Amino acid sequence: MRFHRLNGHEVNEFIIMKLGGSIITYKNRWMPTLNKDNLKRLAKEIGEAWSERKDLALILIHGAGSYGHVLATLYKILKENEYERRLLGFAEIQRLQNELNAKVCAELQNYHVPAVPVQASASAVLENEKLVHMDVKAIEGMLHVGLVPVLYGVPAYDKKLGGGILSGDEIMRHLAKHLEPDRLVHVSDVDGIYDKDPKKSKDAKLIKEITRDNLKQVLEVLGGSSYFDVTGGMVRKIEELMELEGIVAEIINGNREGYVRRALLGEVGLGTVIRS
Amino acid sequence: MRFHRLNGHEVNEFIIMKLGGSIITYKNRWMPTLNKDNLKRLAKEIGEAWSERKDLALILIHGAGSYGHVLATLYKILKENEYERRLLGFAEIQRLQNELNAKVCAELQNYHVPAVPVQASASAVLENEKLVHMDVKAIEGMLHVGLVPVLYGVPAYDKKLGGGILSGDEIMRHLAKHLEPDRLVHVSDVDGIYDKDPKKSKDAKLIKEITRDNLKQVLEVLGGSSYFDVTGGMVRKIEELMELEGIVAEIINGNREGYVRRALLGEVGLGTVIRS
Repeated sequence: MRFHRLNGHEVNEFIIMKLGGSIITYKNRWMPTLNKDNLKRLAKEIGEAWSERKDLALILIHGAGSYGHVLATLYKILKENEYERRLLGFAEIQRLQNELNAKVCAELQNYHVPAVPVQASASAVLENEKLVHMDVKAIEGMLHVGLVPVLYGVPAYDKKLGGGILSGDEIMRHLAKHLEPDRLVHVSDVDGIYDKDPKKSKDAKLIKEITRDNLKQVLEVLGGSSYFDVTGGMVRKIEELMELEGIVAEIINGNREGYVRRALLGEVGLGTVIRS
Repeated sequence: MRFHRLNGHEVNEFIIMKLGGSIITYKNRWMPTLNKDNLKRLAKEIGEAWSERKDLALILIHGAGSYGHVLATLYKILKENEYERRLLGFAEIQRLQNELNAKVCAELQNYHVPAVPVQASASAVLENEKLVHMDVKAIEGMLHVGLVPVLYGVPAYDKKLGGGILSGDEIMRHLAKHLEPDRLVHVSDVDGIYDKDPKKSKDAKLIKEITRDNLKQVLEVLGGSSYFDVTGGMVRKIEELMELEGIVAEIINGNREGYVRRALLGEVGLGTVIRS
């Protein structure tokens, strides 16, 4: 995506960055608890990169983290029989997610990032939990103007089921398909993908790059480890990233200071790179 | 719009109700201040009507009220030269509006209304401050499921100007055109439309009904009064409502207890009715 902004700046790189829920909220809490220290530091890093790079177009997506537990509850509620409770659950979760998103955007705005909330479910339509429609015209327009759309996992209307969960990953995939970014950056709480479970094996090595050449081998290793299931279905994630032709994806560790800033400034190779 | 819900309930009436900003926030304040008492009472009335009428489809739209002052400031900022400040203003206003909307939805949810935030600007595209595109598929889906979408005035991407304000009235018009409701209810802080400025003339009479027959006469009276400009461009509002064929519109006073509930239960004639 190459274009000129209304103010004349040329845009040379377009990045979609996902801030994992494990980074911006406390893991394993039942009640939604924002990790304010982490959020503040990441917002600062994003702000620094944003003020430095006038040639960057950026979309941010954030996970729900501990808010996700609530989402999971909704998900169960949605399968329950009591229709009206399901509806109320849907509505409450959307509102909670908007509140979380407002906090994330407020912090980014503190660091002068023009972070605009964008509620995906305002136009998203699912069919059996698969995203079949989501309008991106306004998001594309915001990018052209120089705004930074900030999306997040939400409950969404489902043609078949009534309602379902539209995850941040699914949103990222949809945007990647329709807006053709140059790079996808997954900010997680791990350094990247290892050839073995690093918690079990001292000699586990970080895989620097996954390409079509070593894909099969990597997936075999990952498929055999429960570790990678826990950390967010890595196998499926990698397979899906491979389907996006011509986009460089990377998993980096947001707990390492400066990594988010450096990734936005153009550095590739801070974690595990996935080239389709 | 006649259809069956997923739970089998038949929907016989579809109402779009706008809660004016003057009703849910304190007027004439600089800092956004929610009128919590009013909001609570209205949420209760809506909740009562909602639990009673299983055959109702409902969209709510709320204004910004005192939050609107901030919007107005943004609007000025948007016309300023400093590009980055304009972007930040856009982002901050959207976030503030989402926060206001979350409070409105939370109160409605307290009264068991499945009130789902819907951010119009997630898909809206303006062109010279006129709405030219806004996706309504997800909103239609939510109605079919039995959710109550809650929309609100927002800053939005503008093809020509970069950004502009998308008002609650404009959203209402767009939804009315594309989703064909049976009735539109404007909840304001006046009883309806008078034949004279009621603050100046003791003998001002409430106009019970505006039709094509008395339209010209009414507009002449309104056009000559500054009172009606202050209360939100009534002349333009009525003209626009007249363009929506086959929809009954009404302006009612939300400060009168029970009026919102009664209007939702099907009563027509509580204020000024406008029939196109």
